[in-house]
Parts: sequence; structure tokens; C-alpha cells
Amino acid sequence: MASVALKDELDIVIPTIRNLDFLEMWRPFFQPYHLIIVQDGDPSKTIKVPDGFDYELYNRNDINKILGPRSSCISFKDSACRCFGYMVSKKKYIYTIDDDCFVAKDPTGKDINALEQHIKNLLCPSTPHFFNTLYDPFRDGADFVRGYPFSLREGIPTAVSHGLWLNIPDYDAPTQLVKPLERNTRYVDMVLTIPKGTLFPMCGMNLAFDRELIGPAMYFGLMGDGQPIGRYDDMWAGWCCKVICDHLGLGIKTGLPYIYHSKASNPFVNLKKEYLGIFWQEEIIPFFQSHTFSKDCTTVQKCYVELSKQVKEKLGKVDPYFVKLADAMVTWIEAWDMLNPAKA
Amino acid sequence: MASVALKDELDIVIPTIRNLDFLEMWRPFFQPYHLIIVQDGDPSKTIKVPDGFDYELYNRNDINKILGPRSSCISFKDSACRCFGYMVSKKKYIYTIDDDCFVAKDPTGKDINALEQHIKNLLCPSTPHFFNTLYDPFRDGADFVRGYPFSLREGIPTAVSHGLWLNIPDYDAPTQLVKPLERNTRYVDMVLTIPKGTLFPMCGMNLAFDRELIGPAMYFGLMGDGQPIGRYDDMWAGWCCKVICDHLGLGIKTGLPYIYHSKASNPFVNLKKEYLGIFWQEEIIPFFQSHTFSKDCTTVQKCYVELSKQVKEKLGKVDPYFVKLADAMVTWIEAWDMLNPAKA
Repeated sequence: MASVALKDELDIVIPTIRNLDFLEMWRPFFQPYHLIIVQDGDPSKTIKVPDGFDYELYNRNDINKILGPRSSCISFKDSACRCFGYMVSKKKYIYTIDDDCFVAKDPTGKDINALEQHIKNLLCPSTPHFFNTLYDPFRDGADFVRGYPFSLREGIPTAVSHGLWLNIPDYDAPTQLVKPLERNTRYVDMVLTIPKGTLFPMCGMNLAFDRELIGPAMYFGLMGDGQPIGRYDDMWAGWCCKVICDHLGLGIKTGLPYIYHSKASNPFVNLKKEYLGIFWQEEIIPFFQSHTFSKDCTTVQKCYVELSKQVKEKLGKVDPYFVKLADAMVTWIEAWDMLNPAKA
Repeated sequence: MASVALKDELDIVIPTIRNLDFLEMWRPFFQPYHLIIVQDGDPSKTIKVPDGFDYELYNRNDINKILGPRSSCISFKDSACRCFGYMVSKKKYIYTIDDDCFVAKDPTGKDINALEQHIKNLLCPSTPHFFNTLYDPFRDGADFVRGYPFSLREGIPTAVSHGLWLNIPDYDAPTQLVKPLERNTRYVDMVLTIPKGTLFPMCGMNLAFDRELIGPAMYFGLMGDGQPIGRYDDMWAGWCCKVICDHLGLGIKTGLPYIYHSKASNPFVNLKKEYLGIFWQEEIIPFFQSHTFSKDCTTVQKCYVELSKQVKEKLGKVDPYFVKLADAMVTWIEAWDMLNPAKA
């Protein structure tokens, strides 16, 4: 497994407001890696990190100091602040996980090394142009089936690996309210590429990506303090990433690995955060489904800036929030480029 | 389970050249249903069917007698002849299975009732317009996740249920030759809707569909005796069905149920049947990927006839075979309508 460890090429980004006791359970898997902890809320509070972990921690004061006026693009009092960690990392790969996610067990009772599976997903190609009925053809014991065009079997680079959750499923507030006792107990032993042209709901709880390929599009938007919505941070990033990946010829995989999601968030609080998003989403999805990029969009940054203009023009009519969000998207790219200057 | 049995609404179609001993294993699941056996090859041979099954059997003489000159659209010496069974059925649903497919076991060791799962798949809606990361949201214990637009949650009718195979995977001849010992041992506990706009390789080994919704598009083409290719019958049907389903707002599901595929066919024989298809496929797939229907195409028949014209015009340049196939597609629709006159 050493061959897929990428110890010097991956940072783990964790947004939090509390002591990181949950890392004890992840110690065998995470300790070899560098952690970037993004402390949300009151910066005077001290976050305890278990001994033995190699980490850097940024609170709101640090973010303001590093980004100056551009820090306005980083959300406050919302786990969307995690994307600051993507920006300050110098590594090729990012894994981000919520601090209420524990190690899940596979059907044989073995602890699942989620990070290892994400790395496998990112290191083998994606196949978004044609569906393979045995799913990821690059997994052991699988291949392309009869009828899969040979010209498409090389695949394309994988930019994002979206992992899932056992126990508490990632439901919206209305579904939480209707099905308070539903638990996800089904272990689906599968990874697949999301087909080109298809959008999906990307959850930030258990997510890995290639910063070099897609990093500048992994912006979690404006949520939380002073904003009219929450809980759409990862969704927004997912829709932006998907259309950009489709345009640039990059792949997104979903499925394995699972983590164990321990605790449902409060559905009443969630409903308050979500309700505008539930309306707006009905306009956002057709916007992304019909979106196309101009030929000039040859980099993630160029795609993202062009997308921000379309957001302002088309979604700005839905609510002034999208005008502010579109501006923040541009600020995010400026901040990204400031911290990640192009190599000579 | 009686609620999903559909005993009077489903026929099982089996193409064969031999005695149907394999039915013994399926007796607990198939005996309540009516079988349509399509005997391929020498019509003077007698096919033995185990006692207690309710069946009708058609050999080549019967097909010629029933269809007259239009029988030219039904393949001979190839399991593509099975589609004659779809045409003579009077039921709403069809399940078709190969005679080298046995009952598979789930991970707990229990026999899988493949037919029951297909019926479940067909009776609950499809969701091709947006990917759900917990897969089929209508399965027990699953739902739509956060970020799935509420306006898309009603889904659309399911026209096709594509089941999979444990043991011998459905590989093409080159892959069979390279990986003679590969077996599919991974039980993936999942059903999903193939997204709109995405093609897939539909295998006819373990397949169910709604005749009323998609029957006239389930034509398995010209294969076998007198034709330059084989083993593309189900693929052709799958590509035609997929573009028509996408146009008419119908869904296709893949995944569960599994059957146990007992024996690999001869890869050398398969290579001979497939090799032209391997070339042609590189033109066929872009043809289907870029295909659009005119607004007049409001029924499966109208879609299929329009598609046949495009096949003749665009794929006819690839090889004269496609001109013949396009004509056979029209003949198939004429034969279908002859046997299935529109209800008053």
C-alpha cells in the first residue's frame, strides 16, 4: 500500500470549532500526513489537537492577516471556511473530512482506510464518456465490458473522489424531519465515474481532490455569518467543479470509501439555513445543466471567472445574493493566484 | 412479494438451441410465469422443456409462417432471434435470460430471485436528470440526498431493467483472450438509473423491460447466419433504446439483480463474430451520442423509423451492412405493428 500513500503530496484539511479528539480514531491512517486545521468561530478559543500529529492551524485572525481584504471570500461561522485550507496548501492532493466522521467498518468488520481508497480513486483514470456496467473498470477483478468502445478505454485524469457515509445519511432538512430514524446501513462495494453532462450533489464530509487539476474551482462559496443560506457550500463547489471538469476533460468519481457519520445535525437549524437554497436550487440546476464555456476557457481559473460572470448575469436575477457570490468567486481566484503564483 | 409478482403481466423469453434443463434450477421463481421459447437453428430438432412449465415454442418455420416475408428481420443462428419473442408476447412486461444463466446467491448465501428484483426496478421510477449519490432513491433505506432538486424527485417511468452477472463477466473477445481466468465475484448491492445523455453496453443475458413503453425499440438487429457480425445484437438494441428513452422521458436502470453466468463462450469464435463490430463501434457510438430526434417523434415507432433513416444515411457510409440493417429496422416495426395492432 506504500505505493499509494502519497505522504508528501497530500494535506488533510479539517474545519472545526472544537478539540479534535476524533483524530484519535484516525491516528493509524492520518498520522503520516500533514493536517491543515481551519478553526471557525471565535479565534481566541484554543483548539486542542492530539499529540503526535503534524499540523498547522489557521483561525479567523490568521485568514484576515494572510488574505487582507480578500478574506471576505472566506465564510465565517460555517464549515465552508475549509476552502481556505485548500488555498494555503502547497500539496498536489487534498483530503477533507468533517470532525464528526469516524472510521467505518467494511462488511467483514475491518476498519476502512478511507484515505487509501481516495488515493486509489484519484490515481486511476475516470471514464465519463460511456457507462461501464461493471463500474470502475480499473478496480481489481473488473474491466471494460463487451460493447465498451476501445478508443475510450484509456480514460481521462481523475480530479475529484467523492466518498460516502454509513450511519447518518447526508439528507436535507425536510428529509431529516420526515425520516428522523433512517440510517444508511448499505455498504455498496463500488466506485464509478459520474458521466459527462450529469450533475451530482457533492458532499464535503469525505472528499478528496487534485489541487493542481481542479483546486481553483473548489470554492465553498459564501455561507454562514451574514449570508442568507448555509449547507449549500459543498453543493455549489460540486456543481462548479462538475461543469468545469466536463469542459476540461477531467473526471469525478463517487462511491467508496465510506466513513462513519456519527451524529445528525439539528433539522430545525438546518431548515433555516437551507430553505432559500431549496427554492434557488430549482433555478441553479437548470443554469448549470445548460451552461457552456467559451473556447478561451483553457484553465480552471479562466473557466471559473467566466462562470462567475454568468452567475452574476443569470442567477443575479433570482436574488442579489448571487451578485455578491459572483464577486466573491472572482475574489477567491485572486486570492488563490496570490497564494499560488504560476510556476515560472 | 405477491404485490410485485405480475404473474399475468409478464412473459419470460428464452432463445435456445438445446433442451432447457437449466429451468429446473429456476423452477421456484419461473414456474408461475408463461415462457416464450424461441428455438434457434434446425427447426426439426426437438427442444425438451421440463414438466410443469407453461410455455409456447417457436422455431424458424413458425417465425417464417407468422411473419411471412417480414421474417427476414429476425436473425437466424444467433440468440438475437429472441426479439421475435418480444413481438409475439401479449404481456406488458418481458424478462429475457440466456440458457447458460443460473440462480446466483447473495452474500448471505440466499438464492437471488432475479425476476422479483427486475419487477421492483421496473415498478419504481427512474431519475436520469440528476445523479443521486445513494443510488436508487426508491430502495428501502435510501432516499434523495441533500442538494437533490425537489422538482426532480418524482422521477419518470422506468422502461428497462438491466441485470448483471456473477462468475463469467460479459467481456469482449480481446478481453476474454487477455484475461481468461477473470471472474466477477463482486456483489455490488445497488441499482441506479443511467443518466440522460449517457450510453451504456446493454447485455441481453439478464434483461427486463416494459413492452408497452419501449417494446418496438427492443430489436436485436441482424446477426448470425448470412451477416458479417455477431454479439452486437443486445448492444444495438441498448443504444437505440437509450436514445429513444432519453427523448421520450423514460428511464433505464442497471445493477441488481445478479444471475450466475456459468460458462464463457469461445473467445476465438467470438473474435470472428466481433471484429468488424469493434471497428464499426468507433463510428456507431459518436453517431448515437450526437443523435437528436425531431419533434414529430412522439411514439417509440416514430422514433425508431426516424432512427433507421439516420442509420442508413450516416452509418451506411461506414459499411453497406448498415443499409441492410436500417431496412430491417423498418421491417421490424412493420412486423411489430402487424402483431400488435393499435388498440381502438
